[in-house]
Amino acid sequence: MAAHSSPTITTIAQAAGVSIASVSRVLNGLPVRAETERRVLDAADRLGYVPNAVARSLKSARTHQIAFAVEDIGNPVYLAMLREIQPLLKAAGYRLVLHSTGADAAEEIEVLRGLGQRYADGLIIVPIRVTREHLAELRAVEAPVVVIGSLPDDGLADNVRTDSRRGVDMALRHLTGLGRRRIGFINGPADTVPGHARSEAFRAGTARAGLAVADGTVHEGRFDRETGARAVHRMADGPAPMPDALLCANDLIALGALDALRSRGLDVPGDVAVVGMDDTDLAAVSWPPLTSVSLGSAERGALAARLLLDRLGADADLSAPRAVTVEPRLVVRASTGGAHVVDDGSAAG
Amino acid sequence: MAAHSSPTITTIAQAAGVSIASVSRVLNGLPVRAETERRVLDAADRLGYVPNAVARSLKSARTHQIAFAVEDIGNPVYLAMLREIQPLLKAAGYRLVLHSTGADAAEEIEVLRGLGQRYADGLIIVPIRVTREHLAELRAVEAPVVVIGSLPDDGLADNVRTDSRRGVDMALRHLTGLGRRRIGFINGPADTVPGHARSEAFRAGTARAGLAVADGTVHEGRFDRETGARAVHRMADGPAPMPDALLCANDLIALGALDALRSRGLDVPGDVAVVGMDDTDLAAVSWPPLTSVSLGSAERGALAARLLLDRLGADADLSAPRAVTVEPRLVVRASTGGAHVVDDGSAAG
Repeated sequence: MAAHSSPTITTIAQAAGVSIASVSRVLNGLPVRAETERRVLDAADRLGYVPNAVARSLKSARTHQIAFAVEDIGNPVYLAMLREIQPLLKAAGYRLVLHSTGADAAEEIEVLRGLGQRYADGLIIVPIRVTREHLAELRAVEAPVVVIGSLPDDGLADNVRTDSRRGVDMALRHLTGLGRRRIGFINGPADTVPGHARSEAFRAGTARAGLAVADGTVHEGRFDRETGARAVHRMADGPAPMPDALLCANDLIALGALDALRSRGLDVPGDVAVVGMDDTDLAAVSWPPLTSVSLGSAERGALAARLLLDRLGADADLSAPRAVTVEPRLVVRASTGGAHVVDDGSAAG
Repeated sequence: MAAHSSPTITTIAQAAGVSIASVSRVLNGLPVRAETERRVLDAADRLGYVPNAVARSLKSARTHQIAFAVEDIGNPVYLAMLREIQPLLKAAGYRLVLHSTGADAAEEIEVLRGLGQRYADGLIIVPIRVTREHLAELRAVEAPVVVIGSLPDDGLADNVRTDSRRGVDMALRHLTGLGRRRIGFINGPADTVPGHARSEAFRAGTARAGLAVADGTVHEGRFDRETGARAVHRMADGPAPMPDALLCANDLIALGALDALRSRGLDVPGDVAVVGMDDTDLAAVSWPPLTSVSLGSAERGALAARLLLDRLGADADLSAPRAVTVEPRLVVRASTGGAHVVDDGSAAG
């Protein structure tokens, strides 16, 4: 290449031996592998590339909008995230574009692809199923994205996750500590990221504790109240003895279970202790108040907003994607007979 | 003016004897007074104005975004609206931009004014205080707006309202029908549109029923749980006998009251019957389940979305603003001792 011509993305890509897309991602501050970043920056340096001009021109095209995409904004978990995200974005001068996708993977793909049309400067997305198409779009996407939830590949995007397996373990330890041995499990769809993690953790945790799981005491449905109620009625009508404790994969399932247990004349926690997950606003309001594993929805929302705002920041020289994990906490209430106690696992190590 | 020149907004305004802004509003299908509309359309007709060209050029500048502005998206009333609005907008090809304004009038004014920068094609707004600035902006705004809530002037915008005074009456009739005579009232801020309406209706309704309202049994605070709890503790510690029923201006206040009554050892509904307003998701989950006046949040959200989409529609030839009222319904649950019954007021006429 001629020494007098200004370096371009194409000439940098040639010099670095990487794709044009990778150069674009590095220069735009998007996540890439560390090795790719090093090669691009070395080549840009060698060629005398001045990145600020591009950065300035990109900045002028900003929409001052950030998108937030969730499965169902009616779910209190996502509302808890939204309540943290919205004021942080507002304070930073961004409008919030809300997508409620109905867990439709095709629609989530459209949301990711739509960022190419520059309707938003960045995206926070909570996919409950991560397909190959999600991963391909995350690799190609032209704006910063923060994923809340587990990703199979750490290098793709900024990522905020929780450890729901550890949360299931905390709930099981709590129930066995109360002397409960016949623990039933009511899950959402096991083909979702959260459903799969909870199912695996329940299987491993009960095996480790030497608990027999009776036939007909593990149910799978949706993450809703109807699933909880239906599962309780099936267990009560089934041949196995009623479990003396129920672990529910979220609070909505647990609330449905509480309703059904009441309608069956079963006492909570006398006959059956009940634990939910997510520690939503509903847990404290329900009767009896619901013991629940907090998966830090509010914290996860706030962290995701901060990661995205960092990346959109004026002097952001980030490129490696970052991952943050929020630890679960067990919030003990009357549905397991406890006084109000928060176990953050610090004693258990 | 020369007969051969094409009529413009300015020449139409001169011929009609109205402002340029009024002509712009009529030609863009925005609400104006019927008389103004008639004069503009007459003048446009006389001058041979062809409105479709303008309509077409406006259409090409569309953002495919609609904004929804509420006080606090954490309030389940607004969430109930959002859950209806979001899928309707999505189905019509619009993204939803969410504003949670913290009831800050200045911020609501900014949202209205911001429509002039064409970041959204229309706005659904739920102001809890309507200031003179709100009204001035509604008169000047350059995009369709639907207001959910009462407006002092019918001619300003499409409007979806409820009759919360009638809702208060239904609750009072229910409580007096149960033999309750010492009815306390816990309100949100009385300087808000909903707080003022409920306060007036409580005063008028108790007077009409010949009920004495004891000193210290009417409290005002915010529309939150703390307000409900604090008011109950003050009544219990005060000199007047504890009311035998509490009307709470929303469900959050009622939930706080239920907690405080339980902590005081008072039975609901044995000692004190409790009624909330809004009939949110929390009402059915609480213990005892809460009798509540439904103000049709979900219906109001859906109607607002339909009014706005009508106005943005391809062949919309609307100009007079429309107003729709959603009637309240009383949903009776255990907190007033009732079996589950819905009173839609049809028997009472």
